Amino acid sequence: MADYKLSPFAPEDFPILPPIKGFTMATAEAGIRYKGRTDLWVLRAEVGTTIAGVFTKNLCPGAPVDWSRKALNITTDGPSLVIVNSGTANVFGGQKSRDAVIETAEGAAKIFGLDAEAIQLASTGVIGVPLEASKLVDKFPEINKTLRADGWEDAARAIMTTDTHPKGATATAEIKGTKVTLNGIAKGSGMIAPDMGTMLAYIATDAAISKPALQDMLSELVETSFNSITVDSDTSTSDTLLLLASGQAENAMCKDANEPCLTGFKQALHSVMKDLALQIVKDGEGITKFVTIHISGAVSDASAKNIGLSIANSPLVKTAIAGQDANWGRIVMAVGKAGEPAERDKLSIWIGPHLLAERGEAAADYTEAQGAAYMKESEIDIRVDLGLGEGEAEVYTCDLTHGYIDINADYRS
Amino acid sequence: MADYKLSPFAPEDFPILPPIKGFTMATAEAGIRYKGRTDLWVLRAEVGTTIAGVFTKNLCPGAPVDWSRKALNITTDGPSLVIVNSGTANVFGGQKSRDAVIETAEGAAKIFGLDAEAIQLASTGVIGVPLEASKLVDKFPEINKTLRADGWEDAARAIMTTDTHPKGATATAEIKGTKVTLNGIAKGSGMIAPDMGTMLAYIATDAAISKPALQDMLSELVETSFNSITVDSDTSTSDTLLLLASGQAENAMCKDANEPCLTGFKQALHSVMKDLALQIVKDGEGITKFVTIHISGAVSDASAKNIGLSIANSPLVKTAIAGQDANWGRIVMAVGKAGEPAERDKLSIWIGPHLLAERGEAAADYTEAQGAAYMKESEIDIRVDLGLGEGEAEVYTCDLTHGYIDINADYRS
Repeated sequence: MADYKLSPFAPEDFPILPPIKGFTMATAEAGIRYKGRTDLWVLRAEVGTTIAGVFTKNLCPGAPVDWSRKALNITTDGPSLVIVNSGTANVFGGQKSRDAVIETAEGAAKIFGLDAEAIQLASTGVIGVPLEASKLVDKFPEINKTLRADGWEDAARAIMTTDTHPKGATATAEIKGTKVTLNGIAKGSGMIAPDMGTMLAYIATDAAISKPALQDMLSELVETSFNSITVDSDTSTSDTLLLLASGQAENAMCKDANEPCLTGFKQALHSVMKDLALQIVKDGEGITKFVTIHISGAVSDASAKNIGLSIANSPLVKTAIAGQDANWGRIVMAVGKAGEPAERDKLSIWIGPHLLAERGEAAADYTEAQGAAYMKESEIDIRVDLGLGEGEAEVYTCDLTHGYIDINADYRS
Repeated sequence: MADYKLSPFAPEDFPILPPIKGFTMATAEAGIRYKGRTDLWVLRAEVGTTIAGVFTKNLCPGAPVDWSRKALNITTDGPSLVIVNSGTANVFGGQKSRDAVIETAEGAAKIFGLDAEAIQLASTGVIGVPLEASKLVDKFPEINKTLRADGWEDAARAIMTTDTHPKGATATAEIKGTKVTLNGIAKGSGMIAPDMGTMLAYIATDAAISKPALQDMLSELVETSFNSITVDSDTSTSDTLLLLASGQAENAMCKDANEPCLTGFKQALHSVMKDLALQIVKDGEGITKFVTIHISGAVSDASAKNIGLSIANSPLVKTAIAGQDANWGRIVMAVGKAGEPAERDKLSIWIGPHLLAERGEAAADYTEAQGAAYMKESEIDIRVDLGLGEGEAEVYTCDLTHGYIDINADYRS
């Protein structure tokens, strides 16, 4: 693995993530691919923890995703376990990949004393190299002895692949007067990163929340967080997002996701999810500019999001931003190619405070000098109004640079 | 405009395109944007010419596209005219763009003595800069005096923007015993090229073919030629493909596109279209590798094509090819993200002669050394069999390189 240059958007420090009641964890050097760093993280959740999950939409998912999707529906009386390794994605390794998943889960079940079928597994790294499960299983006794409550930063480091820094976020909320805490960690540097792919995110809370409510909130909030970011339009075969709630804050339960008593919790959950999602974009491969794209006036929110993603994924828009070029012609092109309702002569486009184009032509007061000055900023806002309806969306991306080509084309040659 | 390095796939010579009965043409230096080169081409087609056309699917098309789409349905008793300029795309210039289109057509109608409404117009170049129509109209008297039958290479040069070489192709066929000839020229270097965008292609024949048959053939064959290529997934606001048939070969007419008497003509037409389409890909911005992607075993041809384009448009696949990396994991990812029916454990993947992966895992006999040796070639074949049905497609693309970033990000900075 090459050494990647720290993202210019890397936070100065990893945030302080407090212990969360009901969870313990440990990391280890299993030596799967990387030398001299941890590559295995185990999270133990005590009896009574509810779990919600969202997995990749890629139709060629990895064996760990197939396993974990099933595990999400298994009810266990015992504690739950999450096992994540970096170094290999254990994807497209045929029967060997499937066997490795079973060997890992059964090995863990024996050592940690719980049900194999309910264990959540994830692997991230090279595609096409089956996981050597024994490397993980051999470490489980050591891990079982060293489980502790405060290992979140170590965990975030152990699951990194091409990430240039570990990613974490925390928030608190009140549910019916009881304070609850949420911690989240994530890894990812492209929708799929090079050879060593995948976005993974894990969020743990001590709140007591029913499984259906947990799943409803996660599925809803993923749309405006992890599903609103794109680095390169490529979709990982391993993307996994889990939310685990131990219940040990002992708050009174709310029935369902839409009850007012969960409003504060949902806000806190969304802030953790969005924080982690933006950290992933801001660590996008080769990034020099972080870009927020706001679409309004579309016929629906879904239509606005498609248009936003069409702009965010356009190589010509992304290279223009890298070149500090306020090239709104390419934005028009990307709006038009989205296939969503749009009328050229009703479009307005802004970058930052500058109106570039309105009603189908260049804005009268705009000067190229204004655009050129603004495009030197490291955080770029693009706003497009379709002038058709009330649909809105915001998506986040980065520019497309020589650094991206370096990481993805040159690192093996 | 920067000087771009000649594509490594540029043909040694422009092919010899013979005069085609019923067509005359001329070029001029109208000085729209470029200095010291032609930027205006006028093609005159005599009375009786039938015309078929296919235009961009971009929902924010240019004013010339709006005009030409209408013009295609106007029946004229007089000769027909095609007017193409490079330097500006005359897109998103609001009323000024629409006025420029009318001024150009009316100016030409007066000087060439024909119906304005039936004139085919196309502009290619910067988006957002309205065309100064007077620059074209001022050149029409000179053009009208210098029309000649053998100007195809000059025409191909006059319509270039970021193309590194002019593009032409020719073929002959027989219709009911009469020899007919087809000439084609095209420009384009990305689905939309930087700032100065667009794919344009014009094909002229002396064959006598009814307008419906001409349109049916063009619409059918565009799918396996111009619509099977991609450089960067971006869709131009100006793409235009015209097929003009003068009828002056005086062959007996065939009723419709599917009659056996048109089989030879269709083959010749397809060969010209595919030749021009591949020349566009092979002049793709920053290209170092030309890539053919063949999909088989899909549930339908349409599904196969979507999967092929998902691979062809994946930045991670394209950068891997640039890096001479036989990275089949990224191909699996791109198959899965296409959203078309696919089963991981039925997939097989080849590069050139080498089977890389089959039944969901790495092929037993494949070695990385084989892949590494093959990836040094300049023309790369990727073959994917889905193992599900009979659907097939072939698509063509190029790699994603530092050269692409140079052209699209750095040329203004």
